[in-house]
Amino acid sequence: MYQKLKEKVLKANLLLPKYNLITFTWGNVSEIDRKRKVIAIKPSGVEYENMQIDDVVVCDLQGNVIEGNLKPSSDLMTHIELYKHFENINGIVHTHSRWATVFAQAGFNIPVYGTTQADYFFGDIPCTRLMSKKEINENYEKETGKVIVETFRERKLSPDNISGVLVHSHGPFVWGIDCMDAVYKAVVMEECAQMAYATITLNRDVANIQEELLDKHFKRKHGPNAYYGQK
Amino acid sequence: MYQKLKEKVLKANLLLPKYNLITFTWGNVSEIDRKRKVIAIKPSGVEYENMQIDDVVVCDLQGNVIEGNLKPSSDLMTHIELYKHFENINGIVHTHSRWATVFAQAGFNIPVYGTTQADYFFGDIPCTRLMSKKEINENYEKETGKVIVETFRERKLSPDNISGVLVHSHGPFVWGIDCMDAVYKAVVMEECAQMAYATITLNRDVANIQEELLDKHFKRKHGPNAYYGQK
Amino acid sequence: MYQKLKEKVLKANLLLPKYNLITFTWGNVSEIDRKRKVIAIKPSGVEYENMQIDDVVVCDLQGNVIEGNLKPSSDLMTHIELYKHFENINGIVHTHSRWATVFAQAGFNIPVYGTTQADYFFGDIPCTRLMSKKEINENYEKETGKVIVETFRERKLSPDNISGVLVHSHGPFVWGIDCMDAVYKAVVMEECAQMAYATITLNRDVANIQEELLDKHFKRKHGPNAYYGQK
Amino acid sequence: MYQKLKEKVLKANLLLPKYNLITFTWGNVSEIDRKRKVIAIKPSGVEYENMQIDDVVVCDLQGNVIEGNLKPSSDLMTHIELYKHFENINGIVHTHSRWATVFAQAGFNIPVYGTTQADYFFGDIPCTRLMSKKEINENYEKETGKVIVETFRERKLSPDNISGVLVHSHGPFVWGIDCMDAVYKAVVMEECAQMAYATITLNRDVANIQEELLDKHFKRKHGPNAYYGQK
Repeated sequence: MYQKLKEKVLKANLLLPKYNLITFTWGNVSEIDRKRKVIAIKPSGVEYENMQIDDVVVCDLQGNVIEGNLKPSSDLMTHIELYKHFENINGIVHTHSRWATVFAQAGFNIPVYGTTQADYFFGDIPCTRLMSKKEINENYEKETGKVIVETFRERKLSPDNISGVLVHSHGPFVWGIDCMDAVYKAVVMEECAQMAYATITLNRDVANIQEELLDKHFKRKHGPNAYYGQK
Repeated sequence: MYQKLKEKVLKANLLLPKYNLITFTWGNVSEIDRKRKVIAIKPSGVEYENMQIDDVVVCDLQGNVIEGNLKPSSDLMTHIELYKHFENINGIVHTHSRWATVFAQAGFNIPVYGTTQADYFFGDIPCTRLMSKKEINENYEKETGKVIVETFRERKLSPDNISGVLVHSHGPFVWGIDCMDAVYKAVVMEECAQMAYATITLNRDVANIQEELLDKHFKRKHGPNAYYGQK
Repeated sequence: MYQKLKEKVLKANLLLPKYNLITFTWGNVSEIDRKRKVIAIKPSGVEYENMQIDDVVVCDLQGNVIEGNLKPSSDLMTHIELYKHFENINGIVHTHSRWATVFAQAGFNIPVYGTTQADYFFGDIPCTRLMSKKEINENYEKETGKVIVETFRERKLSPDNISGVLVHSHGPFVWGIDCMDAVYKAVVMEECAQMAYATITLNRDVANIQEELLDKHFKRKHGPNAYYGQK
Repeated sequence: MYQKLKEKVLKANLLLPKYNLITFTWGNVSEIDRKRKVIAIKPSGVEYENMQIDDVVVCDLQGNVIEGNLKPSSDLMTHIELYKHFENINGIVHTHSRWATVFAQAGFNIPVYGTTQADYFFGDIPCTRLMSKKEINENYEKETGKVIVETFRERKLSPDNISGVLVHSHGPFVWGIDCMDAVYKAVVMEECAQMAYATITLNRDVANIQEELLDKHFKRKHGPNAYYGQK
């Protein structure tokens, strides 16, 4: 019944090892079908190299499994929280990819230093605040989603223009218009994080990209005046 | 007679080059069969790409070869010392993997900065003290084991929760419930070491992960309340 | 009609992923046929792994497409500006290769610290000034070319001896006697950038290579007294 | 007539790309047959992937070609100088491998921080002084060899215990009992250089390995009391 959705989510999950974004089973991809109100997501703790289409788990928006024999990713409730509040996104990727995680561990945003990041992210990629003891101990995964939503709301960021976040001391969540788009942006974020690390350690006085160049590059690829690519 | 044990140890050794943990012949994996009181271990100085099952050496707990035509790894006596004192471990890996070795050379613990390490190691991965001239010159490999055991005893660490150590100026030893588990944790340690290196050089003021988040993540995967994976 | 030129440009573009200079569709290679006054260039936003010979776009020197069904790279006008002013170059590569881009983001030249760079670049690889708001907002790609040309003119650099540049906050443009030569030098620049990064972060007091050694190495490979290779 | 020697030298040269020690044609391997007073060496500027056995050049100890149609490596006279003064070595490798070259560019020795280096190099790997203008302009390649020999003589180092050197602002030369041994040590030096870079940038106060541990590890693998491996 959800064969196409599951196929797509399987395919997106298998891109994570291809792009060197994961070690072992760390990380997961999901996609939501907003009409049918279901989410397909990677099963918890299953090796990518052996994953089959029927391992993909389909859940409702409360997190109940409605198709599949395996348990869904333990991060499911974080995904659900994001889908609820960020209404234009339909795919989410979570990984512990090396360089994005380094910024999450350092508690730093990934600053936008160049056009590579500006082409896809309309500014710095934010790092959340530390979670409280209560948030960690009660409904941890759901609270993780809530602190992400809070980060965007309080800093007046749009999840449509900044398609990802670093959870403090943890790692990146990245999203997009579908799960393939989310994986694409996860690759971009990882590359930008590595370059930002090297930029900072090379030049501690480096400044962010100029506003007008950020604007130019983001809008070359997004919105009504985009002129990059074949469309 | 020890065919299955040797097969497993061979397989675990061959994972070291697969996971880029070794250069040439550096490193070794062993597993103990506590009932039969024997240890199977990599032969000394043999190239991984040519290793055969009958090259694996089986020894008793005094280090005498009881099956095999080759000499065991020169680090055998370190393994034996660890098996004697850490009674729940049955597999050990030693490598000179790059980033763990960098911390060993710097004489630093690998601090726990994020959930990646917290998922597998319940705190910092300790670096031993320098060995004395006497320890180096007499029974060096056995003394290496003793200084590891001392490190855990004196710092009140549990080898069941912190499954590895850095030997100062040398490199990592990692263990687990069997040799495959030890290799798995050696991969995790190496990834955590690289991320910790970058985290520190990015943010010299970085703090360790919060106690409650360390606790949450370690126990999500270990102990009676674990809920990660399919069990 | 332009089959050979298109074949060569396709081949040069496909070298970019081979040499790990690009992620996804980032980057482009062109070659000019100065007699026929045409430029063949990568199409905009097309994946390298699916690129076919007929995807290569042939343009005139005003940027009008004269052969091909796809839109040319959005950076075409930068290429044209360089071909107009640097009369001995016939091939250009633009990438966001990691280490060259790090220097572009830091706003630093790539200093010539060793013979590796001296063998191919007769000095530091310059980083341009920031572009003005007006330059960014009007004819951005053409203005990018103009700021590169200005950089060489004002710093009295020869594009024949220094075959590349970093566009500030953006990334490298590299050129050569044809497009294959340009790709070759893009690989060299990337390797030199990575080594320069590590050299600086290792030794903040490092000095540039001695003038006479720079001279020796560049002229061992270039000009009438070259004696490297089989010619 | 020199078929076996040429085969061995070809094989050793082809290991350089296998071990990621070279880019394009950078680097060369030679071996001397001291009885027949000939040296086989890589031809100048030839791509590794197309190299054939008859491309290997055989020269006498004055540098005259005595077999082969190609020009020998431009670094031949450096090799000859080393063979003349370091009488126990029979194979030499020169590369611009990334991390060793970084130390050469920084003008730093590679300090011995751990047992990985101590297993193969009995101390720091020295970096030569800067060459004089005269040395660079007259017989440059021969003078490069002379400054290496001077480094070992003045610092009272033995080329039998320290099998390599960094030429300032240039890169590493590594040697061994034959060309295969030299390639092996070139791989070790590169790995040690990368780890030393990270060790220093992690801990600026790091100390060299203890004398007794250096001694222990080097002699575990070298000399009459060696006990590593199967001999």
